[in-house]
Amino acid sequence: MMHSLLLTKPDGRHLTLYSRQPIDPTLAAPSPFAEPLNASAHLRWHPLRGEWVTYAAYRQGRTFLPPPEYNPLAVTTDPAHPTEVPAGAWDVAVFDNRFPSLAQALPGAAPPPALIVPTAPADGHCEVVVFTQDPQGSLGGLPLDHLDLLLQVWGERTQSVGARPGIDYVLPFENRGAEVGVTLHHPHGQIYAYPLVPPVPARMQAVAAEHLRAQGRGVLEAMIENERRDGKRMIYEGPHAVAFVPVCARYPYEVWIAPILPVEGFAQLGDAERADLARALKTVLLKYDGLWDRPLPYLMAWYQAPTDGQPHPESHLHAQLYPPFRTRDRLKYLAGTEIGAGFFAMDALPEEKALELQQVRVSLS
Amino acid sequence: MMHSLLLTKPDGRHLTLYSRQPIDPTLAAPSPFAEPLNASAHLRWHPLRGEWVTYAAYRQGRTFLPPPEYNPLAVTTDPAHPTEVPAGAWDVAVFDNRFPSLAQALPGAAPPPALIVPTAPADGHCEVVVFTQDPQGSLGGLPLDHLDLLLQVWGERTQSVGARPGIDYVLPFENRGAEVGVTLHHPHGQIYAYPLVPPVPARMQAVAAEHLRAQGRGVLEAMIENERRDGKRMIYEGPHAVAFVPVCARYPYEVWIAPILPVEGFAQLGDAERADLARALKTVLLKYDGLWDRPLPYLMAWYQAPTDGQPHPESHLHAQLYPPFRTRDRLKYLAGTEIGAGFFAMDALPEEKALELQQVRVSLS
Repeated sequence: MMHSLLLTKPDGRHLTLYSRQPIDPTLAAPSPFAEPLNASAHLRWHPLRGEWVTYAAYRQGRTFLPPPEYNPLAVTTDPAHPTEVPAGAWDVAVFDNRFPSLAQALPGAAPPPALIVPTAPADGHCEVVVFTQDPQGSLGGLPLDHLDLLLQVWGERTQSVGARPGIDYVLPFENRGAEVGVTLHHPHGQIYAYPLVPPVPARMQAVAAEHLRAQGRGVLEAMIENERRDGKRMIYEGPHAVAFVPVCARYPYEVWIAPILPVEGFAQLGDAERADLARALKTVLLKYDGLWDRPLPYLMAWYQAPTDGQPHPESHLHAQLYPPFRTRDRLKYLAGTEIGAGFFAMDALPEEKALELQQVRVSLS
Repeated sequence: MMHSLLLTKPDGRHLTLYSRQPIDPTLAAPSPFAEPLNASAHLRWHPLRGEWVTYAAYRQGRTFLPPPEYNPLAVTTDPAHPTEVPAGAWDVAVFDNRFPSLAQALPGAAPPPALIVPTAPADGHCEVVVFTQDPQGSLGGLPLDHLDLLLQVWGERTQSVGARPGIDYVLPFENRGAEVGVTLHHPHGQIYAYPLVPPVPARMQAVAAEHLRAQGRGVLEAMIENERRDGKRMIYEGPHAVAFVPVCARYPYEVWIAPILPVEGFAQLGDAERADLARALKTVLLKYDGLWDRPLPYLMAWYQAPTDGQPHPESHLHAQLYPPFRTRDRLKYLAGTEIGAGFFAMDALPEEKALELQQVRVSLS
């Protein structure tokens, strides 16, 4: 059971609180910012790559001087220093990003600039997802029913944001750790809602649709069956969900997490599937942190069906996780061949890295 | 005029020395390694992305204990500690990478493993390009005629490596600076020769071919004309070559360098074009280092026509340079939206970053 409460911040942004318990309806939404959001972003066409790029040049300074340990994702305890979320009983909070890369233009906003390439409004939406009230926690450290709630939240956000006109793709992701650029350690993720299907999901959808047409079944569904039969790279195998280092991993500790049978997104998961997916997620994250007994940085992206109004039987909800480390002490940098050519080079075999993760013992209690 | 000398190292790898002057034919090629190269790499098919990934798990330890300041790219001065290049009069050296991500299988080598996805030999080639004998130098600090020679070397390598059976694409690139993962500061680049056209060039070729078909001219040629007319983002404008922050930059200080008129690759440049391209390159690199009076890290990739035996009238030789910094103190990390979605988000406008680079004064003397 998921309860939610939709609130509006003083600067006009929305905040939704989610909980396994009913939420006090008198809670109010704080904001570190007083003046209304004045988001200004536009898209420019990249003629050589054939893709859009978004530009959001925010210049407004912050309206307050935060104390040294100020954490905007912690609950507000000092009204003189409001944060993004209120004190009170809730489990997960989602609010509009104050500095969005994509944002619906406000009435009266300037049109996108006229340039030597096509431009367009950056008509999307960016949200921040606060995973827990505990600033010292981690996603993997949350109880299973809290993770289950988060999977429901991602589903609810995907459905409500994806239903807005012009939103074609919704991507929940987490960047975790200083090595991937995160300076705020309070456990949180983001949701980007795009006015187009972005290049990576677009490519994966096209490849999956062709596989479905030619083979009569989903490409990830077939791959999961093969990974389970092979067994060498499995990290978690439950009744409804799996996690594994894919045979074609592009990062040394890359892991995919998915329900065994295809569903288009979080909202289409049954209760038993979602509970098992939460177990798979928690297992992977605990193994990551257990690998070297320290929080392992990673990028985690959850792929669902586009919200472009088309049927997408080729879709199969799954996460791809990319830790940026090659070994305990060495980062994997994306360089010439990866970034310049889009061609990934690995100096470790997925089978070896899977073995390392398999040997990390975790407890899901 | 370019002179060259092809040598074979004790471990069987090739070394070619290039110079503006004749080269002493008695020079011999050193190697830090005694035993023959035993490269072992294979490709695996990534079924979700529809692309190949290469795996090269080298386990052989190094055969010597280098002194603390050992630089394998410096000329050999102590025969007890051979490096990769000999002392003598030469300007640029190119040798086979000892730890290649792609390498032609040796006779008798094991076939690629049988896995749950298609596999193939990683039948490519990886070279290291030593830009100068000066370990303290930088590419931008080299004299113009030395840069001109390097452009010829890249052309010669592209032609000779690209002519090998099965090599479909040759990419010269430079990763520079610790922030992009480089620990060896001796100025050098790499050349990857692929047994396929990798995803990024493949996409750019397809987009360019369609533009040429529909518009009757090249996409980059048209863009250069528009950038020159607009003028706001130009960094260098010579009689035959230009450099500019593209209107659709995906990195704050991204710069493209190109001959004004399309040529398929370095080898097709006329002398005057090549000389001007060297001026453009030097200008950009000096501006980069002048920006904050310190060496600016960057990734530089040079795109040419595929060497797949097909005509490529859509090709237009050019470099794309991506420094990983947003500001003097802040790195641009690729995270959720860039890596997970392939959708780039910029918080700076290309026009502003171009202005910063325009204001850096450089001398090409």
